[in-house]
Amino acid sequence: MASQRVSCGRDFTSSPDINGTLNEAVKSGFDFACVPVVNPRFKREFFNGPAKNRRAALTRSDMLLTSEDWSSLIVGKMSPWLQLDSTNEIIRKNSIVAFKQELAFASHLSVPAILIPLKGPNCANLARVLNSFVLQGHNHQFWMRVPMIAPEDSLGDVFEEEEEEGKTELKHDTWHWWNTLRLICDCNKKISIALEVTENLPSTQAIDRWCGEPVKAAILPTSIFLTNKKGYPVLSRAHQQLVKRLFKLDAQMIIVGNCRHGDKGMRSYQQYLDHLWQNQDPPDKVMQFAKGYEDYLQCPLQPLMDNLESQTYEVFEKDPFKYSQYQKAVLLALQDRVKETNSKVVVVMVLGAGRGPLVTASMNAARKADIKIRVYAVEKNPNAVVTLENLKCEVWGDLVTVVSCDMRTWDPPEKADIIVSELLGSFGDNELSPECLDGAERFLKDDGISIPVNYTSFLAPLSSPKLWTETRNCKDQNKPADAPFETPYVVKLHNMNVLDTAQPLFHFHHPNRVKGEIPDNNRYEVLRFNVQESVLLHGFAGYFECVLYADVTLSIVPETHSPGMFSWFPMYFPIKEPVFVRSGNHIAVQFWRINDGKKVWYEWCISEPEVKPIHNPNGRAYTIGL
Amino acid sequence: MASQRVSCGRDFTSSPDINGTLNEAVKSGFDFACVPVVNPRFKREFFNGPAKNRRAALTRSDMLLTSEDWSSLIVGKMSPWLQLDSTNEIIRKNSIVAFKQELAFASHLSVPAILIPLKGPNCANLARVLNSFVLQGHNHQFWMRVPMIAPEDSLGDVFEEEEEEGKTELKHDTWHWWNTLRLICDCNKKISIALEVTENLPSTQAIDRWCGEPVKAAILPTSIFLTNKKGYPVLSRAHQQLVKRLFKLDAQMIIVGNCRHGDKGMRSYQQYLDHLWQNQDPPDKVMQFAKGYEDYLQCPLQPLMDNLESQTYEVFEKDPFKYSQYQKAVLLALQDRVKETNSKVVVVMVLGAGRGPLVTASMNAARKADIKIRVYAVEKNPNAVVTLENLKCEVWGDLVTVVSCDMRTWDPPEKADIIVSELLGSFGDNELSPECLDGAERFLKDDGISIPVNYTSFLAPLSSPKLWTETRNCKDQNKPADAPFETPYVVKLHNMNVLDTAQPLFHFHHPNRVKGEIPDNNRYEVLRFNVQESVLLHGFAGYFECVLYADVTLSIVPETHSPGMFSWFPMYFPIKEPVFVRSGNHIAVQFWRINDGKKVWYEWCISEPEVKPIHNPNGRAYTIGL
Repeated sequence: MASQRVSCGRDFTSSPDINGTLNEAVKSGFDFACVPVVNPRFKREFFNGPAKNRRAALTRSDMLLTSEDWSSLIVGKMSPWLQLDSTNEIIRKNSIVAFKQELAFASHLSVPAILIPLKGPNCANLARVLNSFVLQGHNHQFWMRVPMIAPEDSLGDVFEEEEEEGKTELKHDTWHWWNTLRLICDCNKKISIALEVTENLPSTQAIDRWCGEPVKAAILPTSIFLTNKKGYPVLSRAHQQLVKRLFKLDAQMIIVGNCRHGDKGMRSYQQYLDHLWQNQDPPDKVMQFAKGYEDYLQCPLQPLMDNLESQTYEVFEKDPFKYSQYQKAVLLALQDRVKETNSKVVVVMVLGAGRGPLVTASMNAARKADIKIRVYAVEKNPNAVVTLENLKCEVWGDLVTVVSCDMRTWDPPEKADIIVSELLGSFGDNELSPECLDGAERFLKDDGISIPVNYTSFLAPLSSPKLWTETRNCKDQNKPADAPFETPYVVKLHNMNVLDTAQPLFHFHHPNRVKGEIPDNNRYEVLRFNVQESVLLHGFAGYFECVLYADVTLSIVPETHSPGMFSWFPMYFPIKEPVFVRSGNHIAVQFWRINDGKKVWYEWCISEPEVKPIHNPNGRAYTIGL
Repeated sequence: MASQRVSCGRDFTSSPDINGTLNEAVKSGFDFACVPVVNPRFKREFFNGPAKNRRAALTRSDMLLTSEDWSSLIVGKMSPWLQLDSTNEIIRKNSIVAFKQELAFASHLSVPAILIPLKGPNCANLARVLNSFVLQGHNHQFWMRVPMIAPEDSLGDVFEEEEEEGKTELKHDTWHWWNTLRLICDCNKKISIALEVTENLPSTQAIDRWCGEPVKAAILPTSIFLTNKKGYPVLSRAHQQLVKRLFKLDAQMIIVGNCRHGDKGMRSYQQYLDHLWQNQDPPDKVMQFAKGYEDYLQCPLQPLMDNLESQTYEVFEKDPFKYSQYQKAVLLALQDRVKETNSKVVVVMVLGAGRGPLVTASMNAARKADIKIRVYAVEKNPNAVVTLENLKCEVWGDLVTVVSCDMRTWDPPEKADIIVSELLGSFGDNELSPECLDGAERFLKDDGISIPVNYTSFLAPLSSPKLWTETRNCKDQNKPADAPFETPYVVKLHNMNVLDTAQPLFHFHHPNRVKGEIPDNNRYEVLRFNVQESVLLHGFAGYFECVLYADVTLSIVPETHSPGMFSWFPMYFPIKEPVFVRSGNHIAVQFWRINDGKKVWYEWCISEPEVKPIHNPNGRAYTIGL
């Protein structure tokens, strides 16, 4: 993991002596302290009331700590009495001015984060004032403190008895409070969540939903801790699991409340969290490989147009699973081939041989099956051909013929029994495997075998403010403003929530020609998904499954993911505007694959719960060159 | 009206001889003919079937008519057998290729408009193919032929028996067909409606909704015409009203079907429509004044920052209603003032005297009431002061003192009994009347009168693809891409549909100071509207009502509009994305007026049916300078 230990702070209700407070926190092993910017009992009156003309310092002096300490050890808390959405105009106006005062002073102190309580569903005015401040360019994080479950007593007087459909959900489900605020603030990246973990936890779906949100801090009240046999604070198993999930999001921990474990002291809470941190499951191979790439948007490779670099080959050749599957597939295909045709020598063509891993896999398979083969290694990248020629010379010998040529234009001396290729992208066909293999079929014998035999792209709807705001930042001055939303990305999906099981989209199989005609690789499908909890849709995850041969498969679909295989991160297909989907509603997406003879692209549009404009019409933002 | 006669075309099911067809149409008095691009029985097979390799000309030669005739007299019709959204893949793929063929040939002919039938709710693939073609830049109008009421028999097999909520509406209500198609096509301006008028008409709300859409043509089947005593075709009263509303949108008429009025001939239908055209109500004063300005977006005046031009003054001085109301108001105020204070001479200050209409109104009122007045005409625009000085010299005499000064900095020799101003904009306070009059209150006597006494802005939600696409075109390279949607416009609302009764928003009254303090002119209100029919929300209409004095008012709110008053067009507050509102749901809008001491602006955001980002935060796109 990135950090050796958990980052854990302590919350203070008030701090009459900030140096003392900070010392106390640090002595107990905490990394930072959450402190009110202004004494929580110092209410100000600007429009009315006796205090209107009272003169006094707003708060303690900024000289009490060094700038260094303010800007690294203190999280500033806004006053609990502020009610920017009060229906009482005087309270509301007073709160606005006092809130701005506190924000301005916290900003003056350069604290790294400002903690703001979000207390109910009516937060439009709070959102406006906050958004106004954030857009002025202040360089803090703004942490909205949201409880996972709404406290019962805070709800009584917000709404009338008779409520419309949807209103009850809005009132009781604190996710809606957050969703309202962040939507009004146009999903500003600086505004994130300090999630208050409650004693009772919500449903699994609700927890999944929180884990798709930008949770930067978790607030743990001392009251939710249990006591173990030795008198130390511990968390229930469910709370432990939650905390470990929040660790993965790099959320900082904040302990709130008085010490409830007598002689063990506040330090025992921090120590327990650090214990959980140290006892996380070690990362698997895929996680290790992906470290640092989480939610990092990459443009898909275009190996057909561009030549790959040496290090790209090197990375992918290390995949522990992929080439052993290829070897199995070739072995089974060789055996079937010999059984059916009684060939003495099987002709294998590796199409797109790269630096040779499929040639090696084929040779290994032949040796294992004790079948003679003749291999053609076709590769269009002249830089990779250097490696192939050297391998032929040093390892493979005369069984292998290296062909430096684009498979689409190659004129082979004989036809193949088996063609082997690894032309698949994260979305299956997105590196134009269908078009390449259609072109290569002319040198496959009529009853020959293609490895892979077929492949299918998959889609699943997802919610991820993180990916969506990252996409918004991908502006390119040479393209229209919306172009980043009309482009798919390769990305290790991390801070997100998949909303339903992935469904198959486009299917391709090889060989593919019917009576020698060029097959139609255009596709059009409509997929429909169920949504259980109300959620904000930000786009779709793209995956693929592939049958190499017989029962030998590769998959990056979550439900069937090949173990340890890291060669492909998923795809992310964004949408221009987040779409709110109410619980129980459907998401329908129309998806097209278009080939105009020169290039290939996808177009997509949402048709449920609402119809939205088509993305990437005529490939205006993204195409794949043939 | 713009045109002397109705533009009326005739639809032909087929046209074996295009010259004959065109002659027949012209001879019967029609202006154009709607003709199939390809013989409607010529089905082509591209993927399967016996006709696959048949060779024949697609259609008649382009040499049969001159380019001039093709491009002015012919509307091209797409074949009726095309089913781009068939669930049968072969039919669908065939239809796509054939549809593109026909579009391409129609484009080759440069016909002004292409007529495309829209036959059901499933039209995503049709929308994609059409959108793809339109975005290639072809310069035609694309008229989607949509019936006002769905034909019963076309619905049978589209959906299963058990349907989800909303599906039935989607299937039966043809507006949803259109709405789906235009949303997928991202509200492209080139794609509009040829509205097929059915024998039965839908509800008033449904008709209102159609009249808010871009209806470029109305299709009238001969079967909906009745027969009058003399045997001529006529329309029912309801159909007449509809046709007259469509005239106002400059929709062209198309007669479809065989002649059903025997010896009267096809000409009789065209003649009847022209009769309706000639018998339209003559335009009232507001309509006359607004001619040519319908749906034309103007940036609101900023008379406080900029000086108005002579012609602007001239236009507004011609208002037949406004100044007679001011005269009445001043008269009543003078009478009350004398009654209450026994003054012998009443001091009247005209604040923002312009070229003097309020001075004249005040003088007239005083003469009528037989009350002596002393008038100060305060004006900051030095160009208008020239007019005032001349009027004083030639007409008004010594009773009037002209003051060339900004009222906010003027130091008057005495205090006023009555201040009269006309500082209101289309949204009431949007030309900063509150701030100006607050500043001027210091020279009003404690018990003095302000004319106007108070004013209130009003909002109503509206649907208008026209205004929204116009807004999208208002791009300014110096501003962010979204800026046009964060700016209000002054506009004569025309091709639009107001969705609910306007509601009061912000209220201001004068005098306003409490104990000498500067009043707070910030405002925050939430309005909630009902929506009866499912609709697409494009923003809000802004209006104002004003009490000049006692019961003398001015209003541009539709329900209470002052008769003949043309000085103010409404405002349009756009939203960034159209919001779909399902029938029975609510629209809630949060509205703020913010004054930061240097400038004033509005911010707004939708919070129902969905929460959307705030518009114009910190006045980033639009402010009014103080």
